[in-house]
Amino acid sequence: MTAPLKTIESSGDLTGIMQVLGRNAKVAAHTLALASSEAKNAALKGMAGAIRARKAEIIAANKEDLAEARKANLSAAMLDRLTLDEARVQAMADGIEVIGALPDPVGTVMESWVRPNGMTIERVRVPLGVIGIIYESRPNVTADAGALALKAGNAAILRGGSDSLRTSRAIHAAMAEGLRAAGLPEDAIQLVPTRDRAAVGEMLTGLNNTIDVIVPRGGKGLVARVQAEARVPVFAHLEGVCHVFIDKAADLEMARKIVLNAKMRRTGVCGAAETLLVDRAAASKQLKPLIEMLIGAGCEVRGDKTVQAADRRVKPATEEDWSTEYLDAIITAKVVDDVDAAIAHIERYGSHHTDAIVTDDSNTAEKFLREVDSAIVLHNASTQFADGGEFGFGAEIGIATGRMHARGPVGVEQLTSFKYRVRGTGQIRP
Amino acid sequence: MTAPLKTIESSGDLTGIMQVLGRNAKVAAHTLALASSEAKNAALKGMAGAIRARKAEIIAANKEDLAEARKANLSAAMLDRLTLDEARVQAMADGIEVIGALPDPVGTVMESWVRPNGMTIERVRVPLGVIGIIYESRPNVTADAGALALKAGNAAILRGGSDSLRTSRAIHAAMAEGLRAAGLPEDAIQLVPTRDRAAVGEMLTGLNNTIDVIVPRGGKGLVARVQAEARVPVFAHLEGVCHVFIDKAADLEMARKIVLNAKMRRTGVCGAAETLLVDRAAASKQLKPLIEMLIGAGCEVRGDKTVQAADRRVKPATEEDWSTEYLDAIITAKVVDDVDAAIAHIERYGSHHTDAIVTDDSNTAEKFLREVDSAIVLHNASTQFADGGEFGFGAEIGIATGRMHARGPVGVEQLTSFKYRVRGTGQIRP
Repeated sequence: MTAPLKTIESSGDLTGIMQVLGRNAKVAAHTLALASSEAKNAALKGMAGAIRARKAEIIAANKEDLAEARKANLSAAMLDRLTLDEARVQAMADGIEVIGALPDPVGTVMESWVRPNGMTIERVRVPLGVIGIIYESRPNVTADAGALALKAGNAAILRGGSDSLRTSRAIHAAMAEGLRAAGLPEDAIQLVPTRDRAAVGEMLTGLNNTIDVIVPRGGKGLVARVQAEARVPVFAHLEGVCHVFIDKAADLEMARKIVLNAKMRRTGVCGAAETLLVDRAAASKQLKPLIEMLIGAGCEVRGDKTVQAADRRVKPATEEDWSTEYLDAIITAKVVDDVDAAIAHIERYGSHHTDAIVTDDSNTAEKFLREVDSAIVLHNASTQFADGGEFGFGAEIGIATGRMHARGPVGVEQLTSFKYRVRGTGQIRP
Repeated sequence: MTAPLKTIESSGDLTGIMQVLGRNAKVAAHTLALASSEAKNAALKGMAGAIRARKAEIIAANKEDLAEARKANLSAAMLDRLTLDEARVQAMADGIEVIGALPDPVGTVMESWVRPNGMTIERVRVPLGVIGIIYESRPNVTADAGALALKAGNAAILRGGSDSLRTSRAIHAAMAEGLRAAGLPEDAIQLVPTRDRAAVGEMLTGLNNTIDVIVPRGGKGLVARVQAEARVPVFAHLEGVCHVFIDKAADLEMARKIVLNAKMRRTGVCGAAETLLVDRAAASKQLKPLIEMLIGAGCEVRGDKTVQAADRRVKPATEEDWSTEYLDAIITAKVVDDVDAAIAHIERYGSHHTDAIVTDDSNTAEKFLREVDSAIVLHNASTQFADGGEFGFGAEIGIATGRMHARGPVGVEQLTSFKYRVRGTGQIRP
């Protein structure tokens, strides 16, 4: 049982508080690892129900957070991310139910084989353990991340933004109700009960024997800090400098559709394209219409000399532009000699997140898919598909560009580890 | 091309040396990631050939290392680990050929599925990148680890024991010859060219943006240091405190066979049993014969009161004994109330490495396999099967007890990462 929040907040012993959270999480993880799918799903259903039932309470807490945030002159974008209305609370509850309906990864046999001596070996999924989630102003992460961790049998320690602490607390109370009703430990999902920013440092280094993986959810500053300081593995991407390469064998209509979608569908997502590369052999036909289309859609285009020559509204691109994640209606454009030059550009300036080629030449496509070293590579499809939901994972906790354990959209399966079960009939080793 | 060894050794700029190694490894990793299976296998074949051809040279270098080690009063065990004779050199070359004959994991499609919009998604294995291997006196690790990293398309930075530097260099020269002959970059496998012990620290922290994973191979001191200091992921186990639990429904003959093998086949391996747990309900029949058998085989038994009562030669076990990895002909033995008590004991004192149950009751066996949180759990088989070769992996770089990425025997597949290849026909995201 967690000690009352006020006591902890006023104690001032942050390291002590965090160590208690860590121990609680370890104990809860042990129970969760053996919890049945039914119990976990009942808890998730209970959480969704409790969030709906406590809607007024959650929105009231959110109004208090918002009032304070306005006083503190938070930006309009941050206020928007912080705001919960009825629809957003509803979406949060629905999201938990979607996670509940996913297949339970724990206990799944990933592989099995029989050895010449008759022993059978199974590789079976087990939970990872304790997941630390550090996020900024979006309070809905409290629900999403907590639910996803629980589904995979993990305990979660959540550190939300200090601007949204009241809201996160109200959501967390609903989640605790769901856990209690299902007979699971409340400490399965703990919220760091203090605004003290040093709590983040404690999670990154002080709890390195407790937290198995840290997932940062927020802006570049947060992710960079977590990647630089964490003594535990991190699932994250610092940025998504995503490319679309239009090969000489691309269909112009398909190229238009994909480029427009990759850049403009939503400019603020990590899978949004930031650079358009056009094959020199296709530039005479493709470049002008693509640039006109982008500018016509309200996108600023920054380009090299050739691209500037194609349309006078194109601004010059600086060296820095090629590796910039705009998250806005801005794109850089460049003419490259061929697919090799496109791959070399992506390797040099990209962020190993998501990159696409448009071409009708399957050899060129296969070369691109093989040689581009990114978490997601696409042929004739929009980079905006970089999303766990679009991959069919049901839900994701984020997208990772690291190479260890998880890469690309991190769904419930990537929040598991595995072990080997060996069944014999008395075999001994010669 | 690596700068000449002597120049580097005398420069004294260790950080600079290590940064050069890191950059070389990154460049080589890029080439290796796209190298064909044929080229990698040709390099491995060439390495094996070169090791055989340079046998005399390798053994001469080893003699120099041994002479110096004797002067430095290294223990007999360490001298044995350091020694290479014709048979050991031959075994090293054979081992590289075994790795060459394994299937190439790179490019393997792990999963593929079709989305409702018609896009196909493939999850395909790619190399991890750069693997750092830190080992002690066994110079054969130079060959084993370098070959295994290469097979999975990774670059390797090897830091061998300073006692075996001449031997490692001679082996490394043969490996470089194999790489050259196959047209692969020599920097695919680099040996840290200095005895300066600070090189280990540089690998653990200074190269954290270069090295993707560190594998320590050696004693507990080395592994503990690497685990404590590394800023990159580590594949390792600190110790193997492995248990055999004899359930009340165990067959006595099978129990005898398995306990004897698990403890005494080789006492110095990490999968050797260190504790015997006997179900109270079976103790009257099983305990005495098992203890007598162990003592008869030359094993010291340390036990609780009940075990001491069963045989007067049993010594009392201290609290510390229960969590000690003897790596010797010593075992602790305890009578426990039931399978739950056995599982609780293993959780409390074990090292999450390898644990076994002997029973004819399949329900009890399944409970044990499910609830014991170890990398490897076995039913009716010896703990000494904890080995990549015995699992059918062909070769292993070690056994991991961590939960991230790799767990249990780390074979060539665990030295890979993956990416997603998406193939569309013009799909855009709604």
